[in-house]
Amino acid sequence: MTKEKMPQPPTPNRDFTSAAREEVLKRVEKDYEEFKKTKTFKFPAWLYGPPRGKLFKVEVEDCPRFGDKAWVEFDSARTAFVSIDMQIDFCGPKGYVDVMGYDLGLTSAPIKPIHYVLHNIRNGTDIKVIHTREGHLPDLSDAPYNKVLRSKIIGDGVGIGDIPKGGLGRLLTRGEKNWDIIDDLYPMPGEYVIDKAGKGAFGQSNMPLLLKNLGITHLVITGITTDVCVHTIMREANDYGYWCLLLKDGTGATDYGNYQAAIKQIKMQGGVFGWVSDSKKFIDGVRSAFPDTS
Amino acid sequence: MTKEKMPQPPTPNRDFTSAAREEVLKRVEKDYEEFKKTKTFKFPAWLYGPPRGKLFKVEVEDCPRFGDKAWVEFDSARTAFVSIDMQIDFCGPKGYVDVMGYDLGLTSAPIKPIHYVLHNIRNGTDIKVIHTREGHLPDLSDAPYNKVLRSKIIGDGVGIGDIPKGGLGRLLTRGEKNWDIIDDLYPMPGEYVIDKAGKGAFGQSNMPLLLKNLGITHLVITGITTDVCVHTIMREANDYGYWCLLLKDGTGATDYGNYQAAIKQIKMQGGVFGWVSDSKKFIDGVRSAFPDTS
Amino acid sequence: MTKEKMPQPPTPNRDFTSAAREEVLKRVEKDYEEFKKTKTFKFPAWLYGPPRGKLFKVEVEDCPRFGDKAWVEFDSARTAFVSIDMQIDFCGPKGYVDVMGYDLGLTSAPIKPIHYVLHNIRNGTDIKVIHTREGHLPDLSDAPYNKVLRSKIIGDGVGIGDIPKGGLGRLLTRGEKNWDIIDDLYPMPGEYVIDKAGKGAFGQSNMPLLLKNLGITHLVITGITTDVCVHTIMREANDYGYWCLLLKDGTGATDYGNYQAAIKQIKMQGGVFGWVSDSKKFIDGVRSAFPDTS
Amino acid sequence: MTKEKMPQPPTPNRDFTSAAREEVLKRVEKDYEEFKKTKTFKFPAWLYGPPRGKLFKVEVEDCPRFGDKAWVEFDSARTAFVSIDMQIDFCGPKGYVDVMGYDLGLTSAPIKPIHYVLHNIRNGTDIKVIHTREGHLPDLSDAPYNKVLRSKIIGDGVGIGDIPKGGLGRLLTRGEKNWDIIDDLYPMPGEYVIDKAGKGAFGQSNMPLLLKNLGITHLVITGITTDVCVHTIMREANDYGYWCLLLKDGTGATDYGNYQAAIKQIKMQGGVFGWVSDSKKFIDGVRSAFPDTS
Repeated sequence: MTKEKMPQPPTPNRDFTSAAREEVLKRVEKDYEEFKKTKTFKFPAWLYGPPRGKLFKVEVEDCPRFGDKAWVEFDSARTAFVSIDMQIDFCGPKGYVDVMGYDLGLTSAPIKPIHYVLHNIRNGTDIKVIHTREGHLPDLSDAPYNKVLRSKIIGDGVGIGDIPKGGLGRLLTRGEKNWDIIDDLYPMPGEYVIDKAGKGAFGQSNMPLLLKNLGITHLVITGITTDVCVHTIMREANDYGYWCLLLKDGTGATDYGNYQAAIKQIKMQGGVFGWVSDSKKFIDGVRSAFPDTS
Repeated sequence: MTKEKMPQPPTPNRDFTSAAREEVLKRVEKDYEEFKKTKTFKFPAWLYGPPRGKLFKVEVEDCPRFGDKAWVEFDSARTAFVSIDMQIDFCGPKGYVDVMGYDLGLTSAPIKPIHYVLHNIRNGTDIKVIHTREGHLPDLSDAPYNKVLRSKIIGDGVGIGDIPKGGLGRLLTRGEKNWDIIDDLYPMPGEYVIDKAGKGAFGQSNMPLLLKNLGITHLVITGITTDVCVHTIMREANDYGYWCLLLKDGTGATDYGNYQAAIKQIKMQGGVFGWVSDSKKFIDGVRSAFPDTS
Repeated sequence: MTKEKMPQPPTPNRDFTSAAREEVLKRVEKDYEEFKKTKTFKFPAWLYGPPRGKLFKVEVEDCPRFGDKAWVEFDSARTAFVSIDMQIDFCGPKGYVDVMGYDLGLTSAPIKPIHYVLHNIRNGTDIKVIHTREGHLPDLSDAPYNKVLRSKIIGDGVGIGDIPKGGLGRLLTRGEKNWDIIDDLYPMPGEYVIDKAGKGAFGQSNMPLLLKNLGITHLVITGITTDVCVHTIMREANDYGYWCLLLKDGTGATDYGNYQAAIKQIKMQGGVFGWVSDSKKFIDGVRSAFPDTS
Repeated sequence: MTKEKMPQPPTPNRDFTSAAREEVLKRVEKDYEEFKKTKTFKFPAWLYGPPRGKLFKVEVEDCPRFGDKAWVEFDSARTAFVSIDMQIDFCGPKGYVDVMGYDLGLTSAPIKPIHYVLHNIRNGTDIKVIHTREGHLPDLSDAPYNKVLRSKIIGDGVGIGDIPKGGLGRLLTRGEKNWDIIDDLYPMPGEYVIDKAGKGAFGQSNMPLLLKNLGITHLVITGITTDVCVHTIMREANDYGYWCLLLKDGTGATDYGNYQAAIKQIKMQGGVFGWVSDSKKFIDGVRSAFPDTS
């Protein structure tokens, strides 16, 4: 290649950097003004395209500031309801949490609210449902060694992969009865199940691909435990730009103080990981768009 | 929780699994019929939302079968032009490929076509531009050991991180002159640069996040070398659902047979990794939508 | 914090950048000298720790240059044998490839060599076995739309998710008979199965976590098709630093020229994606360490 | 292929699944017994290979149960000290946190402890140092829209990408003075800097590859803010099997209750995300192995 023959790059007639920033900032300014008027985080059709399902609004609390309330608008067809790790091991009798001696009342509290939400969205809505399960291959090959060791020590000799006295099977082990989702919230045909070896789900499953293909933009998050798996998945999803709403009565932790703190942490700085609402407010929103739901 | 009090899950009045599949298959059937009439892979506004930029069509070759031709439709604002690894090390004098004794003519051949494309899209279009650079941190901490060792052996003692006789600096090392993009194709303000340690880019950079935020759906791919970095990135992007078009004169390999095979491999099975066109056909398409481009 | 009270950072008594690079380069120089003497890529115990299993060497071809031969040394306990996508859809009667009219002889050719390898390593060795399967959820929710559409067009109306005339079930759909691994190579208890929606596997499954936990450093790769899924997975693994060996008779493509080119592409530049050998040479190596294998 | 000619798969003389699990459980049983005697999580040389640097132990608190203490053993050469987001925007005057009106005392509290640790490990040890920076490209192309919008609303019209009154530059924007790491903790040559657009780092940077190549097994974590970026990165690292130790005086949050809760959440269930210690205990451990450190 002879450099002389090559026409030099044209002086660009655009400065994409500042032009692109100005465009974003102009857009955000507009949505900020809209928010001041409506207290609503509108579904951004300019970003995702026109709604594919029905639009509805859900009241959220302590937003933007503690004591305030606001609304987040959802497109039903772009919304996934996520039920995290509602497995016997975490909330059922003779499961892991029960065997460890934690108060089962705390982690089983969200069963009823999640059931209420599932009951409503399973009838006549186009909201997607995703369940996750934490657990390890029967040979423990996908369990980091320090995780297994810590479980052994805190369990006084009984940890992941062991069968506890009075338990249903090997702890946190795929295929065991205790590992599976409880009957009351069991996935139905057409709902998605993500198996994961970690607290989070995005880095080791097809969940990101699934969300992308389904066109999901907003996640409504429930499950257990609030400060561990629920927070980890909400953080991952938030980092990738999903609009995340936690239903606070649809989640629980092994320690009530940790539960409360986990809720508060989400609300900091105007919603650093998303928004917080509850099952009734969410279903009220859903019903406003799907009134004929039985 | 008393099981008796919990209303049992309703019989679902939907079978999402088959309903969802039928919806996809019905849609694909429709687009298949459209394709038979128009030979065009239309921009799927039903999937991504209405166009944000201008729509234009590009002729692609050997599609769906060898010998056939067809068109792919782009939304300019959702299209990114990707120029892969046009670094001195791969296509410039005294760079890595030159020092190794490969024919520089093969890897520098795409410079002119890429320049032609950049020249056109930099003036007046809203097509995004992404450049990638392969290279390692100066302490080689992000270079897998077997990669460094193999480079040392094939280079008869001169590999990644070494300064070859007559070379410009340490081979494939970030910050060195030979590592940077050649002057003729140097990124302009507002264009994106992805630095990567591997042949691919998706698993170790913010490229997936960038594409998601920019709303990109279609990638127009060029760069070097066809069978190594270009193919790897095209495979990654295709797996994530991006519509990928390779401009065959905008890419080159260190071996002409490998170049030809890499092109053919893309076209198998109706386009297993995407489509193939050339710089003229692409710019003809762009010009049809942006006629006032200088 | 009062800046005055804060002791200023010490002048570092180390320059990690160049020191670290020199350490890598010294190590690589040593292994390069060793290679010149032995023509062997020794198992780097300095990098991974002492062998956990038995060491054995496998002859590889066209390395470092075309016409040369060399050896790669493996630690059996850190080696995984990977059998990619040996599903009815790709190599069995009435599967996808058969239905599309491709020559089944090409993709079924690797069955016997893979069977031979499995037969040998299943008896008495500690080499791990990983199988992969490409396929989509029954509602096609993890299938990128352009993939489904292209399959429909090239299949003249019959693509992914459809039941072809004379076929066994829905093409590339999880749970269907045609989607599963062929009987002759079916996974045994204790072997790993990775389900994936794409050509690659690393970005959408727990395969990276599994390899890390199992302590795998070297992969022996077989399966179909050479230029599509096999190459994609080999590229991903190579980018993450795995030492990859392809067994050339243990792989096949739908086009013989693409198969040949895919093999050659690996060998470029001293092994840009790894090394190439065959099933007999690999098992000869295995047997040298496990002589009592039946 | 004629099925008759194919020898049927041998009956496997191993059951890898249960054998592998038993091996893990036996190992974990042994390390559990060792822990009961020594209260130490020994560096697992059986897993990672023999130490490359010097071994040292650090006292950790509330482990395995609240009120207990234990020790974690480190291999210095496999340890990385991580300083998260110690940027002016988060802990310096006129940075983002300051402008938002949060108490700078809380987020700047860890400066001195981190400085103390850096001072010690920079002299004569082989512990690696990694800094992270949160921030966005100047055109905001890697900032999820909801993140920008929320920052605008909570900031009463001044958010990410804006220049606040009395501020140093555009908030959280790469290249701005306020975005960079504070002078007192500025990276030295040979230390690593990871730029990230999210709260976490693993899914959008080369950090996983870097840790793998450097042979890191243990992370010592500090930085801000405890409940946001620090926790997110610790969760990601823990999911991938890294042994994570948080230095509690080396981290801070915008709210003291959230800080306290974040510390407690780590310690649940015997250390669900790792362990907690402080800068003095960590450096005491380091000094025991590197006594000549100035």
